[in-house]
Amino acid sequence: MKLSITVVIAIVNLCFQSANAQSEPIITEDFKPSSVNQPEKIFPQVNSQRRVRTSISAPNASKVQLDIGGVKYDMKKDEKGVWTGESNPQDEGFHYYQLNIDGASVPDPGSLYFYGAGRWGSGIEIPSADQDFFALKNVPHGLVSENIYFSKLTNSFRRCFVYTPDGYNENTKTRYPVLYLQHGSFEDETGWSSQGKANLILDNLIASKKAVPMIIVMDNGYAYKDQKNTPSDKNKPRESIFEEVLIKEVIPMIDAKFRTIPKRENRAIAGLSMGANQTMRIMMNHLDTFSYYGGFSGTANYPNSDTIDVSSFLDGKYKDGNALNKQIKLFWLGLGTKEPAPFPKSVGAFRNMLEQQGIKYEYYESPETAHEWLTWRRCLNEFAGKLFK
Amino acid sequence: MKLSITVVIAIVNLCFQSANAQSEPIITEDFKPSSVNQPEKIFPQVNSQRRVRTSISAPNASKVQLDIGGVKYDMKKDEKGVWTGESNPQDEGFHYYQLNIDGASVPDPGSLYFYGAGRWGSGIEIPSADQDFFALKNVPHGLVSENIYFSKLTNSFRRCFVYTPDGYNENTKTRYPVLYLQHGSFEDETGWSSQGKANLILDNLIASKKAVPMIIVMDNGYAYKDQKNTPSDKNKPRESIFEEVLIKEVIPMIDAKFRTIPKRENRAIAGLSMGANQTMRIMMNHLDTFSYYGGFSGTANYPNSDTIDVSSFLDGKYKDGNALNKQIKLFWLGLGTKEPAPFPKSVGAFRNMLEQQGIKYEYYESPETAHEWLTWRRCLNEFAGKLFK
Repeated sequence: MKLSITVVIAIVNLCFQSANAQSEPIITEDFKPSSVNQPEKIFPQVNSQRRVRTSISAPNASKVQLDIGGVKYDMKKDEKGVWTGESNPQDEGFHYYQLNIDGASVPDPGSLYFYGAGRWGSGIEIPSADQDFFALKNVPHGLVSENIYFSKLTNSFRRCFVYTPDGYNENTKTRYPVLYLQHGSFEDETGWSSQGKANLILDNLIASKKAVPMIIVMDNGYAYKDQKNTPSDKNKPRESIFEEVLIKEVIPMIDAKFRTIPKRENRAIAGLSMGANQTMRIMMNHLDTFSYYGGFSGTANYPNSDTIDVSSFLDGKYKDGNALNKQIKLFWLGLGTKEPAPFPKSVGAFRNMLEQQGIKYEYYESPETAHEWLTWRRCLNEFAGKLFK
Repeated sequence: MKLSITVVIAIVNLCFQSANAQSEPIITEDFKPSSVNQPEKIFPQVNSQRRVRTSISAPNASKVQLDIGGVKYDMKKDEKGVWTGESNPQDEGFHYYQLNIDGASVPDPGSLYFYGAGRWGSGIEIPSADQDFFALKNVPHGLVSENIYFSKLTNSFRRCFVYTPDGYNENTKTRYPVLYLQHGSFEDETGWSSQGKANLILDNLIASKKAVPMIIVMDNGYAYKDQKNTPSDKNKPRESIFEEVLIKEVIPMIDAKFRTIPKRENRAIAGLSMGANQTMRIMMNHLDTFSYYGGFSGTANYPNSDTIDVSSFLDGKYKDGNALNKQIKLFWLGLGTKEPAPFPKSVGAFRNMLEQQGIKYEYYESPETAHEWLTWRRCLNEFAGKLFK
């Protein structure tokens, strides 16, 4: 009897599916503590298959699960009441996760905590082949400063983090260009210099002369008008005034407090996801203020994937491609190859519009990453090296 | 029948004890979300009795407890599977706490997280009558900078946080005095500018001209020799080299990187608990480096309460009281009135020694606080106002 190659493949596939369904996955026992564990904590761990193993003592619990990447994995209890379990292989890079103990979703007491997904909670780092670019190395390090300010526009205290490159404090005559860098939805101003590694990425780029020394300002993208005095508007959705806060409050404050070069040629603006959307609008509304733009995993037509009508999109700001090519020094877009809908099609529709309008831009794809921080670290690494040159 | 007043008091006491044992405590229903909750989170809450109320959804749990102040309080489940419970009244100020779900000790997903008690975990703020001195107010704010450095002595990356007062960045000709400020045991370099509120305390003091503008350096008090190359020493207890790291690495780095006044007259050193002990030794070994000392809830004879033998204590550094009075501009000690053993007696024995030696010092007591952060915030507030004047 002769079998066609197609039939052989089908049989092999069936065997594999059957094996997967009936038997436990083969787990490689080379787990190591995650690089973002709390001091001295042995769990969570990651192995060479990129599986996550968590462990927690919960002697009286009836069910404990590891909740990562949208999947809940049952953990198993040993005779001492310690529950341990593993996830399927995860993408390289940083992921938020949590534990679930008898129905309660809680942070893992073993991990450090990060703000994302709308909460402070656990995160884990799956080593990536290219992790050297964001590693903590023995190179000169810049400072990350917490800068608290009172915003009259929002009638509230707000905060931005400011990266100043090595040498900023000593070279008191030198002035620096500035990158305004924004987080995504359900994240905040802490993200870029924590799980985003923006400071280490720039330290490494600057030390190897791949980027020029620059200041980076990381503010909070959520900003609303003070509603204390307008009780009648309580039930209306809040209108973001982040653009106004950035232009009228943050930039003047940064230019006054830090030794910036306060010109459009020396200002860049970039963001990830919601931040890409926000900063693109701000860029196009303020070409007198910025000349470099970076959009990481997002464009202003989000979540739409339809053909863009340039006459109406962003008030026609993309109508005159020739004029934009003269004004914009760099228009840069990045996306992970594993991003979910609607990002690929939405960014695709935006790129089609740029091409139709003859607008010059650069496009980068992060291999094998989705809508997560390794995509954005790589985007920043690529983008920052092209600024202010 | 006539009853003596003593008998009446005894009967009243018995009634109270009986009431406490048999009935539920009367809980005032004026709970408000804690000031250190995660954004938008309604729980944990605090009421005017200074009780803490926590709440968590754990529909399948059989027992959930609030663990605060060394006591575990049973929480109660409602029909939706949400557990809620209250603590007894707590002291004013900041406390670490956690939840216990069927035997698992975990952070409360409602609170912000702080490093203390040897872990990143939940904290809560019980409003205090004097909280204005550490409140976030519309005054000029200094910056808190994260400063990463490679330590050759420990062969590791270390980190300090550096507070620079408002105006530091703009007044590039001005040089500033420096306070080196240390955390306690099982805490780290993040404590003073987070739950310690050091930056807000100084912002408020400087704005009201109660303190002179100064730089504050907050390093990590745990520092050990690199043990990678000495495997034979693995089982020996690690010897702290924090004094060496501070004197040989941190101070030269700070004096090079920041515009300090690099003289003993313009340097202070202080710490809390373990940090008070450490910095007292460092002060006495380096009177050529520091002229102001602050010991918050701790002295170098800890945990001993015996009469101090000045000929041997700290290598006889306190023998010559007259000489010390000329060299030391301020020797300042602080303690909470509710501190547990051995602090009151240990600090008491130290004060007796100072008095016997005729050494001038100032002593402050924080009313109604124990070995916790409100004591230390108050100490810093009192101490910082006396520096560099």
